[in-house]
Amino acid sequence: MVTVMITSYFEEEHVERIRGVDDRLRVLYREDLVPPPRWSGDHTGPPDWRRSEKGEQEFLDMLAEAEVLYDFPRGHVKDLIRVAPKVRWVQASMAGAGEVAEKAGLQSTGVIVTTASGVYSGPLAEFVMMALLQHVKGLDRLRRDKAEKRWREAHTETLRGKTLCILGMGSIGRAVAVRARPFGMRVAGVKRTVREDDAAREDVDELYATRDLHAALRGADYVVVTLPNTPETYRLVDAAAISAMKPGAYFVNVGRGKVVDEGVLVEALQSGHLAGAALDVFEEEPLPEESSLWDLENVVVSPHSTDNVPGLTNELQSKLFRDNLRRYLDGKPLRNELDKRLLY
Amino acid sequence: MVTVMITSYFEEEHVERIRGVDDRLRVLYREDLVPPPRWSGDHTGPPDWRRSEKGEQEFLDMLAEAEVLYDFPRGHVKDLIRVAPKVRWVQASMAGAGEVAEKAGLQSTGVIVTTASGVYSGPLAEFVMMALLQHVKGLDRLRRDKAEKRWREAHTETLRGKTLCILGMGSIGRAVAVRARPFGMRVAGVKRTVREDDAAREDVDELYATRDLHAALRGADYVVVTLPNTPETYRLVDAAAISAMKPGAYFVNVGRGKVVDEGVLVEALQSGHLAGAALDVFEEEPLPEESSLWDLENVVVSPHSTDNVPGLTNELQSKLFRDNLRRYLDGKPLRNELDKRLLY
Repeated sequence: MVTVMITSYFEEEHVERIRGVDDRLRVLYREDLVPPPRWSGDHTGPPDWRRSEKGEQEFLDMLAEAEVLYDFPRGHVKDLIRVAPKVRWVQASMAGAGEVAEKAGLQSTGVIVTTASGVYSGPLAEFVMMALLQHVKGLDRLRRDKAEKRWREAHTETLRGKTLCILGMGSIGRAVAVRARPFGMRVAGVKRTVREDDAAREDVDELYATRDLHAALRGADYVVVTLPNTPETYRLVDAAAISAMKPGAYFVNVGRGKVVDEGVLVEALQSGHLAGAALDVFEEEPLPEESSLWDLENVVVSPHSTDNVPGLTNELQSKLFRDNLRRYLDGKPLRNELDKRLLY
Repeated sequence: MVTVMITSYFEEEHVERIRGVDDRLRVLYREDLVPPPRWSGDHTGPPDWRRSEKGEQEFLDMLAEAEVLYDFPRGHVKDLIRVAPKVRWVQASMAGAGEVAEKAGLQSTGVIVTTASGVYSGPLAEFVMMALLQHVKGLDRLRRDKAEKRWREAHTETLRGKTLCILGMGSIGRAVAVRARPFGMRVAGVKRTVREDDAAREDVDELYATRDLHAALRGADYVVVTLPNTPETYRLVDAAAISAMKPGAYFVNVGRGKVVDEGVLVEALQSGHLAGAALDVFEEEPLPEESSLWDLENVVVSPHSTDNVPGLTNELQSKLFRDNLRRYLDGKPLRNELDKRLLY
C-alpha cells in the first residue's frame, strides 16, 4: 500500500477520483485540516487561517504516515523532512515550485518534487495576449474618449510584423508563442541552453541562449517574462537588460517578480523608455501601497491570480496528479519532475 | 493605353509604384484634387473639404477620360456613370463596397467593382481578440482595483472551451477564426450558403447557413459580426436573434452597424442578458451623443477606425491594386470582385 496525503483543498469529486486511481492507494484527506479555498482552484487559503490544536496533532499524525504528498503542507514547509519522514514524492500545486522545495530543504534529499507546470499556461498566455492587444489597439484611449463621449477617429497599431521576445520557453512560454504567431508576430524565445534539435524551435522564429539575452531584447517590440525565480534567473532583467530593450517596447511579466529589478523597471516606465507594462507578479506581494506601479497610467496591475480559472484549474491539477500516481505505482518517470539543482 | 485615375489620396511612393506596373498604363493623379488624409491610410478626408471651382472642373476632365478608377470619387458617387462614362472597373478602398456601388447605380451596368477585402482583416481580427480577452480576463475590474490600490486576488475566466460564433466567413471572419482557435475556442461560422466542400470548413469547427443563425447563436459564448450591410444582412441581428443568444454572451461588431438592431442591443446590454459588447461600427456614425452606448460600462466604443494601421493599410491597398491592374491588362479575373446582386 502507498499512503497518499492531500494537504491542500480539493473538491470531494476530485478526492474521490484520486482514490479511484488504484486499489493500492490509501488516500488521507481531511477537508477541515486544510486551508479553505478563497476561490475555486485556490490552494493557499486565507493568510490568517490556523488549525486548532487538536487539528494540528491530527494533521501531523497523517503527515507522519505519508509516502506521497499532494502539495506542500501549509505550516510545515521548513520542517517537512522531520514531520513527514516517510515522504518520497511531493506533487506541488504550483508551476514554479523551486523556491518552496528549497525552503523545505529537499535539495539534499532523494525526495522527488513534481510541479504543476502546464496547468496554468493557457490562462497566463491569455493574459499576455490581452496585454499586447489592449496596448496595440489603444484601449486606454478608447476608454478616455468614451468617458467624454468623444468620437475621435484615429489609426491603431498592429501586432503583425512586430517581434515578441519570450524569456523562458517552458510550458507558459510555448503557450504564448502558439497564440502569438497566428497574429503574424515574429517570435524570439530565450532559454537557458539551446540545442541544435531543440523542440522549442518549432514554436519560435528564433531561439537564443540566456547568455545572448541582450541581443534578443534589442530586437523586440514586446518582452514577456515567463521564468520562475531561481538563483540563475534572480534579477536577470536588470538595468543593463532594460537599457538593451528598444525605446517604446512593452513589457509583460507572468513569471516571478524577482526575475526583474522592479525599481529599474519603474524608472523605465516613468521615463517613457518603455511604453508600458502588464504585471501579474511583483517583487513583493501583495504589491505595497507605496509602490509607484499603482500610479503609473501605462501599467496593468494584476494581483498574481490571472493563472487560476474556476473549474479548469482543479480539473487539470487532479488530472495531472492522477496521471503521476499511476506512473509512480508503475515505477515510470513522473511528469514535471523538478530539477532540484536548477530549481525548475 | 488604359487610363487609370486615382481618386483618393495615396502617398507619392505608391502612385509611382502603380505607374510602374506597365507601360500601357496612363495614370492620372492630382494630390490637390483629392481629400487630404486625416491620418495615414485614410481615404475619406475631412467632412467639410471641397474642391475649388477650377479644381472641380479639372477633376471632372480627368474622370471623363478614365477607364479604371482607384476608389469611388469624393463628390461624384451618385452621378458616377454620367461624369465617368468610359469607366469599366472601380477598385474600392473599402472592404464593404456594396452600399456605395449601389448608390453609384452600378448594379445595372457592366462596370466591375472590386473591394479592398483582406486589407483590413488583420487589424479587425486583433480588435475582436482584444475584446474577447479583456472581457474574459476581467481587465475592467483590474483597472478599478488599481485606481483604489486594492490587491484583491481572484479567479479569472478562460477562452479555452468557449464557443465563438462568427457571422460572415469572408476575409475578416476567417482572420478571426485562425487567431481564436489556438486559444482552444470552438469556432462556429455562419455564412449565406454552405457547400459540402466549403473552403471555410478548414477554419471552423462548425459551419451554419444563415437560415440556421438562431441555432448557431444559441450555443455561443461570444458572437462576432463581420458582415457588410446588404439588403440581406440589414438588421439580421434583430430582437429574435438577440433573444436566441445565451444569457451572459459577449457581443462584438466589426462589420456594419446596420446589421444589428441597435436599440434592442442596448436593451440587452442594460438588462444584463448580454454581458458586454465591443463595437467598432454603429447604426449612425459618428455615434450620436444621446446614444446610451456611451454610458454603458460594459461596452467598448471604437470610432470605426480600428481597421486602419498607418503604413500597413496603404501598403496593402497599393499591392492589391497593382496586382489587379496586372490581371486587368492580362484579361484575367480580378481579385475581390463584388457580386453586384448580393452586394458583397
